[in-house]
Amino acid sequence: MQKPSIPKGTRDFSPAEMMRRNYIFDSIRQVFRTFGFAPLETPAMENLSTLLGKYGDEGDKLLFKILNSGDYAAGLAPDELRQASKICEKGLRYDLTVPFARYVVQHQGEIVLPFKRYQIQPVWRADRPQKGRYREFYQCDVDVVGSRSLLNEVELVEIVERVFRKLGIAVTLRMNNRKILYGIAETIGHADKMIDITVAIDKLEKIGIDNVKAELRERGIDDAAIDRLQPILELRGDNRRKLSALRDVLSGSETGLKGVEELETVFGYVERLGIALAVELDLSLARGLNYYTGAIFEVKANDYAIGSICGGGRYDDLTGIFGMPDTSGVGISFGADRIYDVMVGLELFPEEVNFSTKVLFVNLGADEEAASLGLLRALRDAGVAAEIYPEKGKMKKQMEYANRRSIPYVAIVGSDELARQTVTLKDMRTGEQRQVPFAELAASLQ
Amino acid sequence: MQKPSIPKGTRDFSPAEMMRRNYIFDSIRQVFRTFGFAPLETPAMENLSTLLGKYGDEGDKLLFKILNSGDYAAGLAPDELRQASKICEKGLRYDLTVPFARYVVQHQGEIVLPFKRYQIQPVWRADRPQKGRYREFYQCDVDVVGSRSLLNEVELVEIVERVFRKLGIAVTLRMNNRKILYGIAETIGHADKMIDITVAIDKLEKIGIDNVKAELRERGIDDAAIDRLQPILELRGDNRRKLSALRDVLSGSETGLKGVEELETVFGYVERLGIALAVELDLSLARGLNYYTGAIFEVKANDYAIGSICGGGRYDDLTGIFGMPDTSGVGISFGADRIYDVMVGLELFPEEVNFSTKVLFVNLGADEEAASLGLLRALRDAGVAAEIYPEKGKMKKQMEYANRRSIPYVAIVGSDELARQTVTLKDMRTGEQRQVPFAELAASLQ
Repeated sequence: MQKPSIPKGTRDFSPAEMMRRNYIFDSIRQVFRTFGFAPLETPAMENLSTLLGKYGDEGDKLLFKILNSGDYAAGLAPDELRQASKICEKGLRYDLTVPFARYVVQHQGEIVLPFKRYQIQPVWRADRPQKGRYREFYQCDVDVVGSRSLLNEVELVEIVERVFRKLGIAVTLRMNNRKILYGIAETIGHADKMIDITVAIDKLEKIGIDNVKAELRERGIDDAAIDRLQPILELRGDNRRKLSALRDVLSGSETGLKGVEELETVFGYVERLGIALAVELDLSLARGLNYYTGAIFEVKANDYAIGSICGGGRYDDLTGIFGMPDTSGVGISFGADRIYDVMVGLELFPEEVNFSTKVLFVNLGADEEAASLGLLRALRDAGVAAEIYPEKGKMKKQMEYANRRSIPYVAIVGSDELARQTVTLKDMRTGEQRQVPFAELAASLQ
Repeated sequence: MQKPSIPKGTRDFSPAEMMRRNYIFDSIRQVFRTFGFAPLETPAMENLSTLLGKYGDEGDKLLFKILNSGDYAAGLAPDELRQASKICEKGLRYDLTVPFARYVVQHQGEIVLPFKRYQIQPVWRADRPQKGRYREFYQCDVDVVGSRSLLNEVELVEIVERVFRKLGIAVTLRMNNRKILYGIAETIGHADKMIDITVAIDKLEKIGIDNVKAELRERGIDDAAIDRLQPILELRGDNRRKLSALRDVLSGSETGLKGVEELETVFGYVERLGIALAVELDLSLARGLNYYTGAIFEVKANDYAIGSICGGGRYDDLTGIFGMPDTSGVGISFGADRIYDVMVGLELFPEEVNFSTKVLFVNLGADEEAASLGLLRALRDAGVAAEIYPEKGKMKKQMEYANRRSIPYVAIVGSDELARQTVTLKDMRTGEQRQVPFAELAASLQ
């Protein structure tokens, strides 16, 4: 019989991986909670009518579709059987944003605005699997909808600060504002070329100012416009300095000035609150440009090259696609898989995440077992993860079991120990052994 | 535009529901962890070859199948398009047991036996939706494989004890043993009628002994056999008494006596360890009879009628279906949806599960906001879930927001409070207000 396997692009998460993943999720969740965000979960399956058309043509192709149950082919002509829409009504969630928008619209009568929710669930995409890209992966989103206050942006900055401090990852948060990007495009007379301009700015460091100008020309931006762009391409210095230069350049664009003001406000809060996080204005940051309408966020690890590990922004029309206009929101998403890789790479997981059991009692037979079981109950009462080897067996085999499971302590209760009412506690990492009175065992392992 | 909706039989879990559900899952998980069980997760999609044939013909029909991505119809004749197996290679997980068995076989080289794992994930079944039956629901399984020791059964009894004590649900654990049921059938000369006999015993209380006998006759069991069954139908008393009577009746059945001995051993441990749980031998308990080979468990709430809220048993051939024979295991599964209903019905959720934010700062304008933001940071440092209303607004509106979100405390920092460096802290449940110095706020809310 062939060994069973799983669909390509999907993963089993072993206990060792799960303990590390749970450490990340629990840390993130705990921060979300201290900011008053509440959990939400939506079904894995959504109606295809909810999902289709929300992710572009490419996204539609990447949806996993669920075959209708029962006799899906009943009454269908052969050419109809070739149309997925005739035999599938449901699809798997592609992200958490569209189901969240659907939830807000569907439950608008019950929801209290501003609505602060977090959502940690898997999503599925029929992408070609490759290194670091999976067909099933978790997203970890936190959003506020129903409030245009910039305090929400500030809260997200604080969440980024706290999550990565807790995880021990040194990061830089880059911020931009879609209104500034629009303002720049508008100012140089090419409001339609916002993306081309952003791409060009992004390449500045790599290819130099002359090549960037040549590229802009190729993209149909005239020389006069490129001249007006010059001061922006040459922006240097800290956030304050950049914003003040932008204020001059964008003086003719109401939208642009609004963007500058928004960033000034957010940066002002960050400074006054003493948020211990490097926050940098980066005009080349354009993720999800067609979608975001204000702040844009992106977080990278300082000491590990892996791309963005968290990002998001302000959107003014999350729910318009479902017929509920004018609901502004802002949110960010944490990339659990990449954060995992950073933490493995930088060895940031605390030691206690590496074992599920802190102490194993060896099993030496009936009398000893009875004493061990009593001690086990006391340890578990005290919240110590403990177990006993389930059958009497060779000491060597039991020690090997403890080693292979990375259990840090082994407790031996033999006839000597029974007589003395002590446990021989062996530290499996150092090999050191000591005698611990029964009554002190829980305290010594807590 | 029509309001969007979700597929029938699926559910959104609102923040209020999620907080209660998480409380249940966290409580269960915490108990699993103190017993050294480690988490495992498998993909939502499995190859259909893994799933088909594992749940009977009925189960095969209830699998949700995923349409192959890309051009699923390419090269297929019309009659092939009518066969799900030609256009679908993957299906959604139907339970956690088969994926677990698949995992153990696939990763047998890495796994250390005995392998103790828990798994809390959703499963999907294309069942007809009805009250209490969903097409997506969570299972919450804990199993040990690779050990035949009855200590594992005892650990599961302790887990049941601890989980329901933690949740505050008074329960009774009923136990049976498949070997006893086989022994009874064998003893009366109808080894093939094990299920009929169990069903008959189950009806004893409802329909009385004479009707049960009539039914057994109908099912083809002769009068001599029914006479031999008589002492079993009349079994009364505590576990010890029942087991001792069974020992007599089953004296000719080696398997039956083995079953009696197994239960005696488990009950003996339960007594000696002082496990504070009602454990009852129930010969009518037959869940998953074709699957289990030893102990059978079922838990019901004492004070709420809803059927079984937890159950499981010993199986001797979990992995045989994937070509790895002789791997014995034992496990139980907690029914989160029903446990949820019991806890709502008996009002067992602790108060802190009902709100995501403990204190809301009202927003009275720039100066007051600045002070509030500093206090908020200190509260969050102390782990207190806190937020500020994101914009300046009418007090009434902000209070209403706190009320609708069930936030128990509102903190007011106005000009008077600023001058005194105190917060007016209002208890939203009693309406009571008191002055708390800035420096004492975190401690008073922790």
